[in-house]
Amino acid sequence: MKESLDYIYKEQKELSTFGGIAALLGWDQMTYMPPMGALDRSEQSAIISRLSHERIISDQLWNHIEILSKSKNFEKLLYNDKIIVKRLRKDVKKARLVPSTFVEKLVKTTTLAYPAWQEAREDSDFKIFLPHLEKIVELEKEYCSYINLPGPKYNSLIDDYEEGMTVDKLKKEFSYLKTQIIEILDKIRSSSIFKNQIELDLKFPVEKQREICNIIFEKLLLPKDKSRMDVSTHPFTTSMGYNDVRITTNFERKNPLFSFFSTVHEAGHALYELGMPKDGFKDTVISDSPSLGLHESQSRFWENMICRSKSFWNYFYPIFKNSSPDSLKDFDIDIWYRNVNLVKPSFIRVEADELTYCLHVILRFEIENSLIEDKIKVSELPDIWNNKMDELMGITPKNDKEGVLQDMHWSGGNFGYFPTYAIGSIYSSQLFDQLCKDNINVLSEIEKGDFRNILSWLRNHIHKYGRIMTADEIIKNTCGEGLNSKVFVQYLKNKYYKLYNV
Amino acid sequence: MKESLDYIYKEQKELSTFGGIAALLGWDQMTYMPPMGALDRSEQSAIISRLSHERIISDQLWNHIEILSKSKNFEKLLYNDKIIVKRLRKDVKKARLVPSTFVEKLVKTTTLAYPAWQEAREDSDFKIFLPHLEKIVELEKEYCSYINLPGPKYNSLIDDYEEGMTVDKLKKEFSYLKTQIIEILDKIRSSSIFKNQIELDLKFPVEKQREICNIIFEKLLLPKDKSRMDVSTHPFTTSMGYNDVRITTNFERKNPLFSFFSTVHEAGHALYELGMPKDGFKDTVISDSPSLGLHESQSRFWENMICRSKSFWNYFYPIFKNSSPDSLKDFDIDIWYRNVNLVKPSFIRVEADELTYCLHVILRFEIENSLIEDKIKVSELPDIWNNKMDELMGITPKNDKEGVLQDMHWSGGNFGYFPTYAIGSIYSSQLFDQLCKDNINVLSEIEKGDFRNILSWLRNHIHKYGRIMTADEIIKNTCGEGLNSKVFVQYLKNKYYKLYNV
Repeated sequence: MKESLDYIYKEQKELSTFGGIAALLGWDQMTYMPPMGALDRSEQSAIISRLSHERIISDQLWNHIEILSKSKNFEKLLYNDKIIVKRLRKDVKKARLVPSTFVEKLVKTTTLAYPAWQEAREDSDFKIFLPHLEKIVELEKEYCSYINLPGPKYNSLIDDYEEGMTVDKLKKEFSYLKTQIIEILDKIRSSSIFKNQIELDLKFPVEKQREICNIIFEKLLLPKDKSRMDVSTHPFTTSMGYNDVRITTNFERKNPLFSFFSTVHEAGHALYELGMPKDGFKDTVISDSPSLGLHESQSRFWENMICRSKSFWNYFYPIFKNSSPDSLKDFDIDIWYRNVNLVKPSFIRVEADELTYCLHVILRFEIENSLIEDKIKVSELPDIWNNKMDELMGITPKNDKEGVLQDMHWSGGNFGYFPTYAIGSIYSSQLFDQLCKDNINVLSEIEKGDFRNILSWLRNHIHKYGRIMTADEIIKNTCGEGLNSKVFVQYLKNKYYKLYNV
Repeated sequence: MKESLDYIYKEQKELSTFGGIAALLGWDQMTYMPPMGALDRSEQSAIISRLSHERIISDQLWNHIEILSKSKNFEKLLYNDKIIVKRLRKDVKKARLVPSTFVEKLVKTTTLAYPAWQEAREDSDFKIFLPHLEKIVELEKEYCSYINLPGPKYNSLIDDYEEGMTVDKLKKEFSYLKTQIIEILDKIRSSSIFKNQIELDLKFPVEKQREICNIIFEKLLLPKDKSRMDVSTHPFTTSMGYNDVRITTNFERKNPLFSFFSTVHEAGHALYELGMPKDGFKDTVISDSPSLGLHESQSRFWENMICRSKSFWNYFYPIFKNSSPDSLKDFDIDIWYRNVNLVKPSFIRVEADELTYCLHVILRFEIENSLIEDKIKVSELPDIWNNKMDELMGITPKNDKEGVLQDMHWSGGNFGYFPTYAIGSIYSSQLFDQLCKDNINVLSEIEKGDFRNILSWLRNHIHKYGRIMTADEIIKNTCGEGLNSKVFVQYLKNKYYKLYNV
């Protein structure tokens, strides 16, 4: 038993080391790698992922897990070891359901699909991507047959990103959410404030944007000796290790709000990564987020709950102005706060406002589920997409680039991923609601730019658990209930009705 | 036989992939990694080097090599395959001489020695480093006993960096070189130009230095899509793959000449890496430099032969001035050229001038050889160092930081490495001598800033061979003779007697 325990710890440690290497290979590819390095890089990443996968599905590891899981052995384990063995067994069992030949087939297909998607998007021509996406959808369905969870097939897809989440639960939450957001949006649209609103035409040079992002990076308590910020086309967060968590932002847009909120969003992810449980769980399967939805709740929490709030801008607007070109000097805090929270139905998800964001996600969920259920065909997607956009937001994309081709997720075979973005938004509102109950001074702390108690609250209620519990259990434990769109909708109404005077 | 051939190609390919990963882990550590990431990084690097080492010394690989090496099989191999099998057999045979337990012991020792050296250097206190260096010297001697080449023990150390080079050959070259450089130095010292020379007090802001480095990076034909330049404490070059070769420079000094010549030096290494043989030899043991001396010849070639020449500055000084603060406007090309080639005996090797540089190297070679031969003790090093500095250059370091503790090499167990720096300088002069014979227009091409023919000559005479031949064979093939300090001394005399009017 000692031998088995040593073995599983050693393997988890090596898997964690491989994970850090894979993260660096990916980070470098997105930030600094010279373009011609791509071919070698794909082989470097492939070998690390192959070595990891071989270890995860090895019979040796499985046998040791089985030894430790026998009830007479399991009972004798320490508290931490029990948690680790249970979690590891579940992960490994699931990984072993999928044949290696399938994994290889999926990698090959997506490796070809990604550049095809890029080209299709560039040319705004869905036909280029169509045959690839058709293959991927077939493979996703094949994947469902291996995992084979009860209920709709799509359950087996979303479970990879949001363990325990189901189509039924999502349909219930999302149908309520959709109706409510559309209702709020309609009210806002008929307001005179909306009809007369003009987006501030902000044009910041890169250096000014960078200065502001560096300030907020530090204000949000990201430690300089364990984290850093670089630049990539699509902002992201990645961990090379417990003490090496990196975010990226992007300065391509003249408007500084994109780089600013990207930085805040990724900072939220990074703070979570830096708060993963160490004592007793370092370099084990526990030291990770239980779901992408919970991870996204951390980024949305800082992005929306904190940094789009009036309290925050009361504190930060003078600082922001101070690092701005002259153009801001004429605008007072109310104009600015409104500008930061402008409701503006638009085509691109990553540029959507806080209110309409979830509509983008729900659209993708409905399409994915219908594809997997064979209710629609891949070839019909552009039309279906555009019709849904009209139905949800009353706007129609001019072309596939700003429609069905905008996201890279499908080219990577990541079906089931999108819903976690909305789950994260909902969770973030529930967490903020609870935080305000637990700490009545939170708004005045934000007004002072003091985020220490807020971070400490997140550390104690979310971060420290890692995967000891599921996301659902963690949220229930903290907020007294699981995923609840009503809290989010109430938050949206409170905020946006006031902003639009409806 | 087909199976064996496939096997050795597959293994070499994977080793090359691991090599690229290791390079990225190292590059990131020296450039962007947050300081606290060091612990995880050391484990990431260790696992990759362990996986590589296991593959190199595996019986399976050795058996396949032996099958291919049997004369009846070997005869049937294609030209390229023969070269690869021979080279691989030699490498693997050597690696298998060293027990894995020893490799581990050395890694553990040097892992502790490196921070001890850093601390010792910081505090300028050799005693902190002493016990570590004593262990390392013992391990180096143990290593010699495994490799066990004929002649002095030190032969087994230098062979790792400069295959085929021996203590006897080095002593012969270095004793001549030492006498000659000291003679030239004495003559210069007694000149009135030397007595009255004043180094220009150049103070460039980082951004100006960066601008100039970016210009020369491009002028030297480094392709932007396959290479890049970053910043690290000690400048270096590394390859993540055939199309991903990166250099670093350093802007900590106010004087822009350090970052400029570091960039040029590393650019020379990078051009070599980018010119490695591909057709038929891609991802094999052949696609590498045969020796560090030959690698250094490429960096020294661009640094000294090209970019410290009068022709070069006739071309580049106006460009340099253009990116400079006002301080340069009063100096004409002659003053500038003299300033770039100032002879100034000093303590720190990496800051040494072209003339005295090799004296720094010879000092280290003599010390290393005496240590390995048990003729001196580690505890005596500070005194021996300082006495030798006095003997060679007539100056005495004030402390160990600017003396025996200045280089990191010994903390890493890299005995036998230093001589390659001088070998590189000598080779570079031989190559330039030959280039001038082969292309009589070379100086006028440099004056025009046109380096295409020069690079193409290096590609055809050095780069394309990879490890098809040894460094000695490549130099003989190109220059008609092997290592010859006389050519270098003649070059130094021509250049510096003129500069100092002696």
